[in-house]
Amino acid sequence: MSVVWSVGETRSKHQAARRGLSPSDMFSLAVTSHHLWSSCCQQIRCYMATVVSGSKTSRLVRERLKLQVEEMRGHFSGFRPGLVVLQVGDRDDSNLYISSKLRAAAEIGIEAKHLRLPNTTTQEEVLQHILSINENPLVHGLIVQLPLDSVTSIDSELITNAVCPEKDVDGLSCINAGKLSRGDLDHCFIPCTPSGCMELIRQTGVSVGGKHAVVIGRSKIVGAPMHDLLLWNHATVTTCHSKTLDLPEQVGRADILVVGAGRAEMVRGEWLKEGVVVIDCGINHIADETKASGKRVVGDVHYASANQRAGFITPVPGGVGPMTVAMLMENTVQSAQHFVMKDQPRK
Amino acid sequence: MSVVWSVGETRSKHQAARRGLSPSDMFSLAVTSHHLWSSCCQQIRCYMATVVSGSKTSRLVRERLKLQVEEMRGHFSGFRPGLVVLQVGDRDDSNLYISSKLRAAAEIGIEAKHLRLPNTTTQEEVLQHILSINENPLVHGLIVQLPLDSVTSIDSELITNAVCPEKDVDGLSCINAGKLSRGDLDHCFIPCTPSGCMELIRQTGVSVGGKHAVVIGRSKIVGAPMHDLLLWNHATVTTCHSKTLDLPEQVGRADILVVGAGRAEMVRGEWLKEGVVVIDCGINHIADETKASGKRVVGDVHYASANQRAGFITPVPGGVGPMTVAMLMENTVQSAQHFVMKDQPRK
Repeated sequence: MSVVWSVGETRSKHQAARRGLSPSDMFSLAVTSHHLWSSCCQQIRCYMATVVSGSKTSRLVRERLKLQVEEMRGHFSGFRPGLVVLQVGDRDDSNLYISSKLRAAAEIGIEAKHLRLPNTTTQEEVLQHILSINENPLVHGLIVQLPLDSVTSIDSELITNAVCPEKDVDGLSCINAGKLSRGDLDHCFIPCTPSGCMELIRQTGVSVGGKHAVVIGRSKIVGAPMHDLLLWNHATVTTCHSKTLDLPEQVGRADILVVGAGRAEMVRGEWLKEGVVVIDCGINHIADETKASGKRVVGDVHYASANQRAGFITPVPGGVGPMTVAMLMENTVQSAQHFVMKDQPRK
Repeated sequence: MSVVWSVGETRSKHQAARRGLSPSDMFSLAVTSHHLWSSCCQQIRCYMATVVSGSKTSRLVRERLKLQVEEMRGHFSGFRPGLVVLQVGDRDDSNLYISSKLRAAAEIGIEAKHLRLPNTTTQEEVLQHILSINENPLVHGLIVQLPLDSVTSIDSELITNAVCPEKDVDGLSCINAGKLSRGDLDHCFIPCTPSGCMELIRQTGVSVGGKHAVVIGRSKIVGAPMHDLLLWNHATVTTCHSKTLDLPEQVGRADILVVGAGRAEMVRGEWLKEGVVVIDCGINHIADETKASGKRVVGDVHYASANQRAGFITPVPGGVGPMTVAMLMENTVQSAQHFVMKDQPRK
């Protein structure tokens, strides 16, 4: 049975203001309130978690970035942030992700170029392209779409680390990871998915400092940097993974739970502490005969049961997914601003 | 009141063998058994934790390294691993630490050079020294003794990151931290204190995988890399710090506890789960009128009370401290081996 939860904190007006969001924006657009009251026996009030919409939040982020780019163009005639998406091969999923990045860039005013190399490209050739883009002053962000789809042997780690740290808007190079993991958040790019998760957590108004956060997963693009971000925002952080023996117990202690496990509906509502903030990074396809396609997308959290215990929850789809692209755009605009500032003569 | 604990695991013979320790070595030398039985009221058997001696373990490590260096010299006539300790200024504590490093190096057969620069040295001059040492093929390890004692303004972060990653035997550069934090343990240098802590944990025979490890502290040299090491050895890891609200509760869940908080006797025995492995990285001076010096050294753990609940505990002094120097030597010898292997012609 679902039970009453209460949000004991006010949303952070300061953070909202810094990001150009008014409180009413935040409430009416970013957070879709689903307080469905029902009259249960014994007068127990039951309602469901507040849904934190990534679709709406990402739209707000993109709108803010569009204004920032317009402002930059006003100050520096004709200036546009430049992004290159380097792809090797022709994977269908990569093509899909890339087109959504290019669409978002175009909408914001970022000059994005898709550099598609054939799957016969050698490691040396990819490196040459990266070094040339590193040197190009019109490009402020460079991402290499992974996985590489190549018939030659290419070391992805080497390629990722060839991107110069100042243009590594995916935040996946060792240097960026090193800075993030040691708390130097002001001098690194934060990987886009965890950065989007933090933005969604901020939207709930629940402060992170002093909270017990649990992260499931330790991947380079989600779990590990998410741990770092929560830690350096002063949460007490527990990282769980495939070798964790008592996952339900660990999850049950979380005030904030971020799941990047890659296993469909693994986290059950019964495991959760009442009122927890649940951020679900999973994108899994499961069979569903009621759909024309015969399948549907679900997260790593069992939404229907989690929804009845969580304070806040992200849906799948429409939660973390759209935030990833928005935060890539944010990193690119930040990088462009940094390059512009650097080029200005000192007063 | 103290209670019975039991060690439910056998010590890792495989790991011991890999490190050149026989099981009897491990038992008789590395772990000093202090099973002090007492007959309490109500027939409750009481005994104390097994003390994990860093002094003894570090001696074993240094003896092993000495043999490795002799072997290398046999294979490559006259070859010796080379280490440079760069110091700016003349801090008393730094002088003390450096002399213990130089002593250990001399004992093992490492050619160690102490490069002492005056406190008037500029950042540019320090960088020039580092770049020159980076290029010197006779040097395999370079450490910059921190904190820098300089009258000029020097950016320690910049200096630390100027050391080339292949010679960064302190493991403090961003690149090494990035690799460690993302699980690439085979291609980085692990900072010496956490590396020493892992060695002491191995000595207990308690396996790390699947255990709940709690780390107190998130510094670059202890807490943060300790988290990474435990995580990538497959523990479920919680990091606590100054903003943690429920420290006793978090500590009470630990199977393995590593404390690098810098606060004298902060962790109390009452907080601990029975049988926990306690690794204490603290070095604090407190007043003690019974001593001629008027003070004594204690750790971050209240030893007398923790000793009655822990399964294993490191003493202070004689615990983690001596391991730090031993692991610096280990990194230097590993680095030299790597350089030697690289220089060998391919068969």
